[in-house]
Amino acid sequence: MSMSRPSVHPVEAPPFTDGANNHGPRGVRMKEIPGMPGTPAGLGLRLCQFAFAVVSLSVMATTSDFSSATAFTYLVAAVGLQSLWSLSLAIVDIYALLVRRSLRNSRAVSFFTLGDGITSTLTFASACASAGITVLIANDLNKCSINHCTRFETATALAFMSWFAVSPTFLMNFWALASR
Amino acid sequence: MSMSRPSVHPVEAPPFTDGANNHGPRGVRMKEIPGMPGTPAGLGLRLCQFAFAVVSLSVMATTSDFSSATAFTYLVAAVGLQSLWSLSLAIVDIYALLVRRSLRNSRAVSFFTLGDGITSTLTFASACASAGITVLIANDLNKCSINHCTRFETATALAFMSWFAVSPTFLMNFWALASR
Repeated sequence: MSMSRPSVHPVEAPPFTDGANNHGPRGVRMKEIPGMPGTPAGLGLRLCQFAFAVVSLSVMATTSDFSSATAFTYLVAAVGLQSLWSLSLAIVDIYALLVRRSLRNSRAVSFFTLGDGITSTLTFASACASAGITVLIANDLNKCSINHCTRFETATALAFMSWFAVSPTFLMNFWALASR
Repeated sequence: MSMSRPSVHPVEAPPFTDGANNHGPRGVRMKEIPGMPGTPAGLGLRLCQFAFAVVSLSVMATTSDFSSATAFTYLVAAVGLQSLWSLSLAIVDIYALLVRRSLRNSRAVSFFTLGDGITSTLTFASACASAGITVLIANDLNKCSINHCTRFETATALAFMSWFAVSPTFLMNFWALASR
């Protein structure tokens, strides 16, 4: 039985209390907020972000003419980056939950906050740009007969849902960073 | 000489120290961060937001065919809201600076943070949607001869600059709210 703690308890391990009063040797611990890295809620949010981003990517990438508009290409790139980032962080969360290792130190949370801020801004920007073009094609020009309007709309909506799942993570990490 | 403080000093007013150690009777005071409401840097950011939003609004609204695309109409609405919000907050900042009244209590900062969050999201979304359509018209379709590409691009760029000026205000207010 190997735990990632420096102390070894071969007979009986005491229950881990991951609260703010448990100051370990690895930097400053932070308050526990549900949805932060290393919590089940955080892992759920990461998996939602990843699922929405991957489905949005595959719906958009399988349309034949997405590369004719720069915004659609940008959407594919942005949700691709988002899905890679969310998958990496989900793996880190699963590792942290399995070995019961706390991710609440300020360096890790700073890094997660920065990454979440960048990827969420990119995802939101690409979703808005695609929404602008989709609304232009579908409502303003009425050219849905020669375009894949439904697929464009689905991919855009899924990118927005991915952003909705990233935003609380970003805001909670930023809050935890400020209130430490 | 009328100051907006409950205590009156007819002979000699002590110098106001607006630091965090000056706990007044009106709720909890917060740390002073440059750029927060009631500081000269905050007023400067507000005036930048207002100026960029108003110029973007007027450039877009004076094109004859902006109403043909939903995203351009949305840009006009969003930067209109942004300019009204920033002008109101700039007036509040000027008042606070003139009467030397501190705006650093948590209720006011919560309200400012919420408003900044909403208006900055709307402005950024409208700028991204307009950018998507402008790039589609100018680069993908090469239809600048029959459209006002330069004006669309200018209005979009100014909306992005207004968002760049709102974001630090939002993040600093959010940080101050979390670290109080």
